[in-house]
Amino acid sequence: MKITIRCIGKERDSAVLASCAEYLKRMPWKVKFEELSVSQKSNVDEIKEDEAKSLLAKDYSGCCLIALDESGLEMTSSEFSRFLNTKALNSKEVIFFIGGAAGLAKSLKEKCNAVVSLSKMTMPHKMVRLFLSEQLYRAYTIESGHPYHK
Amino acid sequence: MKITIRCIGKERDSAVLASCAEYLKRMPWKVKFEELSVSQKSNVDEIKEDEAKSLLAKDYSGCCLIALDESGLEMTSSEFSRFLNTKALNSKEVIFFIGGAAGLAKSLKEKCNAVVSLSKMTMPHKMVRLFLSEQLYRAYTIESGHPYHK
Repeated sequence: MKITIRCIGKERDSAVLASCAEYLKRMPWKVKFEELSVSQKSNVDEIKEDEAKSLLAKDYSGCCLIALDESGLEMTSSEFSRFLNTKALNSKEVIFFIGGAAGLAKSLKEKCNAVVSLSKMTMPHKMVRLFLSEQLYRAYTIESGHPYHK
Repeated sequence: MKITIRCIGKERDSAVLASCAEYLKRMPWKVKFEELSVSQKSNVDEIKEDEAKSLLAKDYSGCCLIALDESGLEMTSSEFSRFLNTKALNSKEVIFFIGGAAGLAKSLKEKCNAVVSLSKMTMPHKMVRLFLSEQLYRAYTIESGHPYHK
């Protein structure tokens, strides 16, 4: 499985980066982060649209697009594992989008195949990265029957 | 506000401990972790009961007891802030319980004033600590009108 996580903003917390890398290197799926610049516009809607353009700048035909948003669908880790494996089987790559402080534009969410919520609670950007990295690893261990997730 | 987080198991990840401490020192609420030993019993139900006894070993009359469990009530960060502040006003201390790998006993959850879920997804112990520390800080910033949570 090939997964790309496109997110707004650069993560500088080296402990968080190391923890994410640790989860990602433990699994055979190819997962990479792509960091994009924060929009310099002043209006919240303009920021979101600007960042949406940047998040969607590549050609993603044939890919499964997933927006991470508090308003999205919540799943248990097992449901997320099944969801991910099913989606991935039918697409050449799975792309996650993580917004900046202003959140993701409605127009971007409408272009996605799914909008997923990790929690109803608002998390800082670095926690979203860490949480997602761990859930991807957990999804892999559930799928492969690895004892980690028990 | 006085908050004690009683949890099963010792956290050894120094980066996680440092991140938790960083959130906790930024707020005026007195928050402390109390780490308890993992039960050595072999049966899952016995482990849970053994750990429940240890979690409830002190006299908590007049305190508000909150169990953290995936099956619990989910809230947004604003709802959690209101919930916490209301509960705390009516009790001398707020006590959170975090279970070990076997989870929390039903008997303990029944003794609590509330069962709260941070996410439907299963998290490793260290992520629960970090997540809770950040949400407590966020709850404080929401309550006090601090710009962090915006």
